[in-house]
Amino acid sequence: MGTKQDVVVIGGGISGLSAAKLLVESGLSVVVLEARDRVGGRTFTIKNKQVEYVDVGGAYVGPTQNRILRVAKELGVQTYKVNVQGSFLDHVKGKSYPFQGAFPAIWNPLEYLDFNNLWRTIDEMGEEIPMDAPWEAPHAAEWDKMSMKDFINHVCWTSAARRFATLFVNVNVTSEPHQVSMLWFLWYAKLCGGIVRMFSITNGGQERKFVGGSGQISEKIMERLEGRVKLERPVVSINQSGDGVIVETLNHEIHEGKYVICAIPPVLTTKIHCNPELPALRNQLIQRLPMGSVIKCMVYYKEAFWRTMGYSGSMIIEDEDAPIGVALDDTKPDGSVPAIMGFILARKASALTHLSTEERKKRICQLYAKVMGTDKALHPVHYEEKNWCEEQYSGGCYTCYFPPGIMTQYGRVIRKPVGRIYFAGTETATQWSGYMEGAVQAGERAAREILCAMGKISEEDIWMPEPESADVPALPITRTFWERNLPSVQGLLKLLEFSVFFTSAAALGLVAYKKGFRFRN
Amino acid sequence: MGTKQDVVVIGGGISGLSAAKLLVESGLSVVVLEARDRVGGRTFTIKNKQVEYVDVGGAYVGPTQNRILRVAKELGVQTYKVNVQGSFLDHVKGKSYPFQGAFPAIWNPLEYLDFNNLWRTIDEMGEEIPMDAPWEAPHAAEWDKMSMKDFINHVCWTSAARRFATLFVNVNVTSEPHQVSMLWFLWYAKLCGGIVRMFSITNGGQERKFVGGSGQISEKIMERLEGRVKLERPVVSINQSGDGVIVETLNHEIHEGKYVICAIPPVLTTKIHCNPELPALRNQLIQRLPMGSVIKCMVYYKEAFWRTMGYSGSMIIEDEDAPIGVALDDTKPDGSVPAIMGFILARKASALTHLSTEERKKRICQLYAKVMGTDKALHPVHYEEKNWCEEQYSGGCYTCYFPPGIMTQYGRVIRKPVGRIYFAGTETATQWSGYMEGAVQAGERAAREILCAMGKISEEDIWMPEPESADVPALPITRTFWERNLPSVQGLLKLLEFSVFFTSAAALGLVAYKKGFRFRN
Repeated sequence: MGTKQDVVVIGGGISGLSAAKLLVESGLSVVVLEARDRVGGRTFTIKNKQVEYVDVGGAYVGPTQNRILRVAKELGVQTYKVNVQGSFLDHVKGKSYPFQGAFPAIWNPLEYLDFNNLWRTIDEMGEEIPMDAPWEAPHAAEWDKMSMKDFINHVCWTSAARRFATLFVNVNVTSEPHQVSMLWFLWYAKLCGGIVRMFSITNGGQERKFVGGSGQISEKIMERLEGRVKLERPVVSINQSGDGVIVETLNHEIHEGKYVICAIPPVLTTKIHCNPELPALRNQLIQRLPMGSVIKCMVYYKEAFWRTMGYSGSMIIEDEDAPIGVALDDTKPDGSVPAIMGFILARKASALTHLSTEERKKRICQLYAKVMGTDKALHPVHYEEKNWCEEQYSGGCYTCYFPPGIMTQYGRVIRKPVGRIYFAGTETATQWSGYMEGAVQAGERAAREILCAMGKISEEDIWMPEPESADVPALPITRTFWERNLPSVQGLLKLLEFSVFFTSAAALGLVAYKKGFRFRN
Repeated sequence: MGTKQDVVVIGGGISGLSAAKLLVESGLSVVVLEARDRVGGRTFTIKNKQVEYVDVGGAYVGPTQNRILRVAKELGVQTYKVNVQGSFLDHVKGKSYPFQGAFPAIWNPLEYLDFNNLWRTIDEMGEEIPMDAPWEAPHAAEWDKMSMKDFINHVCWTSAARRFATLFVNVNVTSEPHQVSMLWFLWYAKLCGGIVRMFSITNGGQERKFVGGSGQISEKIMERLEGRVKLERPVVSINQSGDGVIVETLNHEIHEGKYVICAIPPVLTTKIHCNPELPALRNQLIQRLPMGSVIKCMVYYKEAFWRTMGYSGSMIIEDEDAPIGVALDDTKPDGSVPAIMGFILARKASALTHLSTEERKKRICQLYAKVMGTDKALHPVHYEEKNWCEEQYSGGCYTCYFPPGIMTQYGRVIRKPVGRIYFAGTETATQWSGYMEGAVQAGERAAREILCAMGKISEEDIWMPEPESADVPALPITRTFWERNLPSVQGLLKLLEFSVFFTSAAALGLVAYKKGFRFRN
């Protein structure tokens, strides 16, 4: 039995711990209830002799993610840059093509126009979507009825663009284009600052990792909270029928609070029996936000043979039979413990879940050998993997997705408090939702909502802008004149039609003139 | 603390109780744990002075639903026919059109072809879908990527058909066409014996109700189970780490069993903390099957004024501003307690959830007054409603839906046992899934799975066919020669194109002949 706290925080991931940290710093009494025997939630750093440390969950940070960078710095956790020395590889139709930058190079001019138009369209459509209220976008109703499969089929004219766009959805939101709302995906990409920021290593979401692993963020906050974090306390009920809130755990502990912050993914709040019952919209919303599907796989080698071959270790793999969709160098910053990290994504995470760890490792090594063209990939010295789909207390990774029709019918209650329950978790963020950055933003916002409810701060201070990180500044992302103005394939076809008409008319006139034909009047 | 049972059944709805009944009759020891203070689940009969009794949840039964009819008969619960005397009304674009039979009459020949083709296509496509394994249909992958919105847009050529088809989805599965998988919906309709059986009153799913209410089915089984049903026992955990299974309830009771039957909707199984964790596919499946949205509304009048006006009380209302989508006479079989039952469906259940009961009642009465053209509808003597969206222990009604992509990626584990846990609930049925009939089928099947696991019956006896009810025989449903062979609108257009080509060619030839033109060679 605990004493009555000001706030009971449910969930010891980055979001719940960020909330608790802010509340404790504001002088409130707090207890954090975490279901697992560790903090960190979807971030998890495993330590062992073979790998030293490895992030088997959320790992990457980059410019514009200023909140998580601020928290990390305060905790003394440093970042390092993911390796980008050497060529990236795009593997498609059995061949590997080296490239540099965020996206594979495209030489076919029609495909170039198609890709350019695809990326431009995602960002341009995002412009009209309010970050804090996507359900209020001018075309919200229409766009929410469409899936990303519809988007891809409408916007892409070449099979190359359609194939890549499908992988792009798989990689960024660990789900399938036909499963997710177009409105939601456009909003999600916008919250990252657009698709280039979202997908890039350099100057983007994958620029850096934490030295020592992202798990330290949660562990170090837990240390600062000095015993306030209770592990192995899955919450089974929230009772608001009295004055305050009574939270009970699976091991029959009762924690009383004036307020509760629910800092777990929406679907996991279904695990909590509520008295009184949740309002209709929230009761149904939390059934409608499934977590994505991913198995994160790290293969360790004696040497970073890819670096000596001139490759960075980054691979984009467009092949239905390939287990991995995208891979990155995961070698330690000092060059030790050479490794390649790869994601098994969406449909493939389901299809390959029944395999043994040994079999997945084998298939991944065979794939890397094929993509990089070297048998060296066949001889790993170690393997680590994490199948997030089987985690009861995550549900999946990286984050939830909105199927078609959910954002407009239910989205507006995503962070609406229910009595004395406030909602955090990266799913409720309005910047970098789904990322560690979103977790911090949401946690701190929920904490300030309670400070406001207690009369300690004013309503205008709930949502706080974040100054830019001095260590990880963002370079602006711009589109060139040509990127902005080149036609789409459809536009080009119209242009050609137009040209053909005039050229043909002119040619016909010329022929007529030469042959001596005249119009009879 | 209970003693160790053979089987712990979770869920005291029709499915769990059917399972328990069969197991007890087979000589096993059973306990049923029900979260609420009543049995019945999504069936619920309220009794009071004004209404005598009323089914605010599942109510309708009809021919081919032989299992629920058999159980009801055994329990001494009789059926009566829903009133079909008088005209049905189809209200569209502000006008009401009387009709008879399952579907509104259509006079516009193009619309007739379009509707005929729509119904035919749903049933014909269903033919290739295996009832027990829709994920194995020849076109499963393709059809599961499409929503019913895609289906409607592809198949329907007239706005009348598109509008009606949308309502048809709303009524039958309490969700929106853009939210549900086409593969799933086609399968769902097939499981009812096709769309005519599903949608009809006479000779269909809405032919009858139970005298005294459907809640009696569960109440009478509970009586027979003589104290084995424990109310107010929400289950919080299932532990299979030892020999048997240990089930714990929110009030700290421990129930030990050799086996467990989970007879609750898939999404509600997320409320149970599992040790060990569920397998990856099941852990993710149960996040992906949201319950539909409906508010069931009964308006009571002094007299059944619609009957004296020549109306049956059945109304189909195609109007974005109308709260109710479909209504039926809900007067008692002896003509007493005149009432009209109406459903607020899908998007409208969300949109109108914030209104007061009084306001909903007012809007519904105004609608009925408009549709039936009489102010008598404005003067109800009583009103009952049930918003299933706010029910924690149902999640929604009537049943779960499969969003696009879920059936093929996860469907195959829907009734796959997890260790000693077996799965019942109407969602796991292979006939009339979503109905009371499916609940009985699934419950009895799960019970026999356990009898088989215990070596008491053979595997071939798990799935049992059901003889036809003698009291409620099914008339065959056939399509006429014309219904089978009339072209679709698209087919007609092609035919016309073809005819126009030949007619034009012939006409041109004739003109050429008459005018004396000849081809120069």
